[in-house]
This record gives sequence, C-alpha cells and structure tokens, in this order.
Amino acid sequence: MAREIAEQPEALARTLEALLPLRGELRSLAEDRRVVLFVARGSSDNAAIYGRYLLEVHAGIPGGLAAPSVATHYHAELDLSEAIVVSVSQSGETTEIVETQAWAAGRGARTVAVTNDGDSSLAAAADLALVTRAGAELAVPATKSYVTQLAAMAVMADAFAPKPGSLDADLDRVPAEVSRLISLRTGVDEAAERLASTPETLVSGRGLTFGTALEAALKLEETCLRPVRGLSYADLRHGPIAVVDAEHVALLVSAADGPMVAGMTDLAHDLRRRGAAATIGIGGDSGFAAAVDVCVPGPDLPELVAPLALVVPAQLTVEALARRLGLNPDAPRGLSKITQTDPANDA
Amino acid sequence: MAREIAEQPEALARTLEALLPLRGELRSLAEDRRVVLFVARGSSDNAAIYGRYLLEVHAGIPGGLAAPSVATHYHAELDLSEAIVVSVSQSGETTEIVETQAWAAGRGARTVAVTNDGDSSLAAAADLALVTRAGAELAVPATKSYVTQLAAMAVMADAFAPKPGSLDADLDRVPAEVSRLISLRTGVDEAAERLASTPETLVSGRGLTFGTALEAALKLEETCLRPVRGLSYADLRHGPIAVVDAEHVALLVSAADGPMVAGMTDLAHDLRRRGAAATIGIGGDSGFAAAVDVCVPGPDLPELVAPLALVVPAQLTVEALARRLGLNPDAPRGLSKITQTDPANDA
Repeated sequence: MAREIAEQPEALARTLEALLPLRGELRSLAEDRRVVLFVARGSSDNAAIYGRYLLEVHAGIPGGLAAPSVATHYHAELDLSEAIVVSVSQSGETTEIVETQAWAAGRGARTVAVTNDGDSSLAAAADLALVTRAGAELAVPATKSYVTQLAAMAVMADAFAPKPGSLDADLDRVPAEVSRLISLRTGVDEAAERLASTPETLVSGRGLTFGTALEAALKLEETCLRPVRGLSYADLRHGPIAVVDAEHVALLVSAADGPMVAGMTDLAHDLRRRGAAATIGIGGDSGFAAAVDVCVPGPDLPELVAPLALVVPAQLTVEALARRLGLNPDAPRGLSKITQTDPANDA
Repeated sequence: MAREIAEQPEALARTLEALLPLRGELRSLAEDRRVVLFVARGSSDNAAIYGRYLLEVHAGIPGGLAAPSVATHYHAELDLSEAIVVSVSQSGETTEIVETQAWAAGRGARTVAVTNDGDSSLAAAADLALVTRAGAELAVPATKSYVTQLAAMAVMADAFAPKPGSLDADLDRVPAEVSRLISLRTGVDEAAERLASTPETLVSGRGLTFGTALEAALKLEETCLRPVRGLSYADLRHGPIAVVDAEHVALLVSAADGPMVAGMTDLAHDLRRRGAAATIGIGGDSGFAAAVDVCVPGPDLPELVAPLALVVPAQLTVEALARRLGLNPDAPRGLSKITQTDPANDA
C-alpha cells in the first residue's frame, strides 16, 4: 500500500495525459443528453460521488448515483434515453457493474466506462472507455486506482462544462502537490496515534470533499478493521452527532477554500464541546487547523480539484495506523481484490 | 414514542384516505417530466430512499436524491426543466429543505412537498403539497410521521405508474397489518436483549427495504445513543463486512418476498460464519427466519408496500432497547425536533 501511495503522482500524470485529449469525444457523446448517472460500488462509488458534485457544481449538469439492484435484481424498465451512464470499476469485471451497464445501454443510455483495465468486459462494452493509467494495483485497498478515477471525473466534468479547459492549470499542479504531501507526512503519525487510542471513529466532510471523507472512512474500516461511520456534516448534525462521547475520535476532511470550510470548522468546535476524545483535521484553512487537535495539511489546490490530492494524507494516516495496529495494510482480513456483491449463483 | 408508534394504524389510514384522491393532480404535474429528485434529510431521507426505489421499480421513472448543498452552498445552475422535485420534511420548516425547494423551482422544476404541516413554508411554496395526517408528533424520534411519508411515496409512485391503482388493495391492508404487528411484539424483547449485549451494531437491507434498514439504524443511533452502521448488503459485502467480529450484532431487514430475500438469508449465514455475536432478523420468509438467531416477524404484505409496516417491529425494538438502557426514548440527548444542518449565521 505504501509503495502504491508513492506511485500516485506518476499515475495521475499519466492518466491526465491520456484522458484530457478525450474531452472532444466526451462532448459529442453528451450532446443531446441531460443527466449523468454513475454506477459504482466501494472506492469507485466514492470517486463517483466526487464526480456527481463536480458535474453539478462545475458543469451545471444534474448527476445521480444509480442503484444497481434496480437493474440486476428488479430489472426495472426505466427510460434512460436522456442519460449518460458512467460505470466506474477498477477491475472492470465486477459482475453487477458490468450487468448494470449492459442494462442501461439496453434502456437507451449512452455508456462511459471508467476502469483501470482497457481490456476488461466493462471497457469493451462501453460507448467510450476512460482507461485510467494507475498500473497494476496489488494491495487490496485501492489508492492509485482511486485517485486516477478522480482524475477521470475531473476530465469528464471539464469536458461537459460550458467552457472546457478552465480546470487545466489546476489539474497540471496535482501530481506535484501529491508528491509534496507524500514527502511531508506532517501530522500523519500523531493522527494515527490518536486514532489508535479510541474504539469509535467518525469521519465527516461535505460537498465536493464528501467522497473524500467516505473514502477515508472505507479505507479505515477495511484496512484497520475498525467500525467507522462516514457522514456529511449535515447528516451528522441532523441526528447521529448525539452519539459522540469520549470514546469517539473524529476525522474531519476539508478543502482549503470553498463554502464548506466554515461549517467544518464549526463542526470541529462542536465535537470538542460534546467531549470527543480527539478531532483530527485533514486539509482546511488556518481557522480549521486551529479548531482541531491534530492537523494533517492538505494540498494547495482549489476545492474543485482538491479531492485528487486531499485523500493522500488520509491514505498515509490509514497506512500508518494499520502498521501501528500490527495489521498488514496490503491484504486486509476477509477481502479480495475483485469484489462481488452477490453469491455466484444468485441472479 | 410508544404512544406514537401505537397511533400509526390510524395515521396511515387517514393519510391514505387524504392522499389517494390526489393522484390525478400528481399525474398532471408529471405529464412532461422525465425524472423525480428527492430533497430530504434524516428520517425523511430514508422515506425518500423508499420513494426512489418504488418509483423506479413500480413506475419505471428514474429517481434520485438531490444533494442539498449543491443548492444551498454552491448555488449551482442546473437545468431542472425536466424534473419533479419532491421535498420531504415532517415540519416543513428545515431551512435547507425550504431553500433547496425554492432553488429547484427557480431552475425550472415542478415541486411537490411532503410534509406533516399543511401551513408550513414548504407546503405554501410547493406546486402541490402532499400533507401527511400523522397528527402532532411530540417524541423527537420520528415514527408516525415517517410511516405516513412512506404512504405519500406509495401514492406518488402509483400515480406515476403506467396503470394507477394496482397498489390499492395492498395499501388498504397496511393499517391492519401495522396494528397486528404492534399487538404481537413477537421477538421484540429478545431482540432488544441481544442488542444490549454488544457494543457494535450493523444494520442491513437492500433495494425496496434499504430505506427501512437505514431508518432502523438512525433510530437505534439517535434513540439508544449507540454507534450504528447501516449498509446495503452489497456495500457490506464489498468491504466493510471484514470488520465483523464477536463485538457485533447485526440487524437484518427483509420483505417476505421479492428478489432480496435470498441475498439477505445468505448474508445472515455469512455473518454467523464470521463470528457475529448475534443476528436479528426483521421480516423475511421462513428460510430467513431459520438463518437468524432472533426473528421479529414482519407484515404479510408484498415487497412493494411492505416498508410501510416493516419498520414497525424495528421501532418497537428500538423503544424496548432504549428503556432497557435506562434512556428516555422521547427526548434523546442532544437533539431537537426541528433540525437545522448549518449554524444559523451560515449562508
């Protein structure tokens, strides 16, 4: 996992170089389409959540997350003739994702596959394949395949935006920012120490970085075998915040700018008042850093593209925590690399 | 909470009687619209999740859950001229829901408000208000307001279906089934005892009953002040299942028929193999009941409308657990009835 985290700057640079020239094709595919639906599971789903927010906020196109069971279990007869369906799967072989893409095509959707394997079933069947260039990923927890999926999302949102190209300068800076964060490791070991000290972990973010928070939660859960809840700060405030006590450590994820920093900073203060064992901040601005107990700095990138690098301090923290707990971060208990969601004999 | 649980049969009968005659108006509103987007938070969000599945599975109309922050924080300029936006809020006064509805109307959406207060800001501003007849709800945890929101969802999906009326006979039977389950209480105290015995709770369901599972998880969390994770069995199998150990009790929710019972039964077996402290089943068929340690029977209703009654055994279990833990189920620590998701001075 550590080696694959370190490979991310090159994986991102290769992927952006390969995918940015496909924006014209993406625009043609989208010309008469009004909505984008994502089909994904696990880390790929967290990448899709970023894609959905970015499409809506940056490109002004309604996005949504499809429920695969509507296709695979209910065989619903939806009219998708106004939709682009974007299926996201590292392997391109997860059965339910491949099946849902085929169903969507049969219901009138144009299909885009985002996968790390250009020879996969998913890529072969799609109208257009955005093949990420992460290289072979051996550790079970997705790292470089996840950030390259985020790069594909940024390319797609930029392609669909009224004026494509406005993200280019910031995307160019992403690989170097990722490199810098991997070298720095500021706060990573202290964050892992705090996480190791309490049984309950809560992760929160919102908006464009909500997917980053969910990805941090999933990685902590799968790799460190801890029960973790990931919630937007709005959902957290709406009820579950009542549970917070001295058994809880909170991991809060924020970009350095944008409309969510104020709410995330306020949440950090609130969690302290409610007696949380510790608050760990990833990213944010100086006010956010001052409001948390431990701060792991994020990238110097605007919120629209920050998620491509903001997950890196979270990955480093998870990797450090796994080692501290005596776990093997490369092969967590009870998981395999290509995941299936139903027993093999279940239709 | 116990009193309001007991009032649900009448609340459901009143709400169905009031809303079923509005199907014609709903159909007119939807005539030229292609997609339904829900705006909600908390229990209302769980009702919307059922609404989304039912719309897709029963009515064949693509549904989705809007991200309120896209409106309230990012002020995105989406084209919603093909959408019906359904805002769900018990009070009709949650600021972000009212704001998001106004934003959607300004972006071309037709709007439907589902609220328990016909005089609320949300109802006043909507093109059509589906006013649930739960009566005043005093306990902080939503029970009768939640099931009446589900009734509104069923009415809406039936109105939008190619042949309206096909759910009528089953909807007629819902109040009596809810009454029967409240009188029976089979397995409720044993389920509460098992839940009290371990610190970690996992709740799972999928498809049409996924919202029921999330609602059971939210109620357990808010009312019993326990950290609870609610996941579809597909998401659970995709990774987080690795965390399950003897500290975990699993609450599994299933309809008696439909394509999810097999997968839920298989999950029960798998969780036992993985060493979960106990599995509690709510609903399901005889195979499912045999696969779990404790079974709390659900309604004799087909999957399409089962959620209107299936949540009742979960509510009874939560209420029993709160009392067993010495908590007041009517006024959980740190929560109030009308919820806001951002500090008052935050735009």
